Amino acid sequence: MRILGLDPGLRVTGWGIVEAVGNRLSHVADGVVTSDDGAALSDRLAQLHDGVMAIIERFDPVEAAVEETFVNRNPLSTLKLGQARGVVMLAPARCGLPVAEYTPNAVKKAVVGRGHAEKAQVGLMVRTLLPGAAPERPDAADALAVAICHAHLRTGLAALTGGGTRR
Amino acid sequence: MRILGLDPGLRVTGWGIVEAVGNRLSHVADGVVTSDDGAALSDRLAQLHDGVMAIIERFDPVEAAVEETFVNRNPLSTLKLGQARGVVMLAPARCGLPVAEYTPNAVKKAVVGRGHAEKAQVGLMVRTLLPGAAPERPDAADALAVAICHAHLRTGLAALTGGGTRR
Repeated sequence: MRILGLDPGLRVTGWGIVEAVGNRLSHVADGVVTSDDGAALSDRLAQLHDGVMAIIERFDPVEAAVEETFVNRNPLSTLKLGQARGVVMLAPARCGLPVAEYTPNAVKKAVVGRGHAEKAQVGLMVRTLLPGAAPERPDAADALAVAICHAHLRTGLAALTGGGTRR
Repeated sequence: MRILGLDPGLRVTGWGIVEAVGNRLSHVADGVVTSDDGAALSDRLAQLHDGVMAIIERFDPVEAAVEETFVNRNPLSTLKLGQARGVVMLAPARCGLPVAEYTPNAVKKAVVGRGHAEKAQVGLMVRTLLPGAAPERPDAADALAVAICHAHLRTGLAALTGGGTRR
């Protein structure tokens, strides 16, 4: 079963595809979709949406997951992020995929074993949990982390990592 | 030339279609698109997007306009509004329509003649400027106001109203 993880942002949206067979996970692909800084907002939103649609068409995932967003930053950033998040989540929804949402702490806990892990640790554990994965961009690593989180939680599996969790 | 005005919201998105011929405006239609409170966020976003797409297909506007959003409210509301705004703006963008944005003050100034008019005055002036228009919902009245604002400002016309503006 293929899962699409998404880390939305207006400038850069990370995406990652993970294959789950039983309780085994493998890396399929990852990358980023970007929007053109100089374009009108509506065109940037269309670029993000079309980019995610192309990923879905290419890799044919059956479920999607997205990180719940921090909102305790400045309101204008929150609005921008919200707009990006809306069009990014819309893509799997329009394709009939269920879209799960996870808090940043749930994602960290699933991947690193602790809810307050640092970003670098998340990236490291993504590479450990998904042999062959070498995401170039942190946004792509975060998207893979959300996909891993969804793979664990949808099947009721405990975190597969050792950090802080008994195996 | 038909203009689509949009007033985005996650629960209720107002829309209005105005026809501009020279400097004459006429009312074509207005209404609201709603999303199902109990549905998943991604499904609600799809409902809003599909609803606006259906309006565009039915009335075939050539330009769209949307109000710039207040962000000085609570961050969670800003995020929700941002998500709704993203998918609502995406609809005309995907259809190749240019999407203009106007501040709330610009809309009020265009419709009422003053940047700090009250909401009720905007509704009243919309009915005056567009004979036959009788929007049932304030969101639809606001959407018509944005369309009127765009009709005025795109052609460089001054506000057509008397309130505070010399004719």
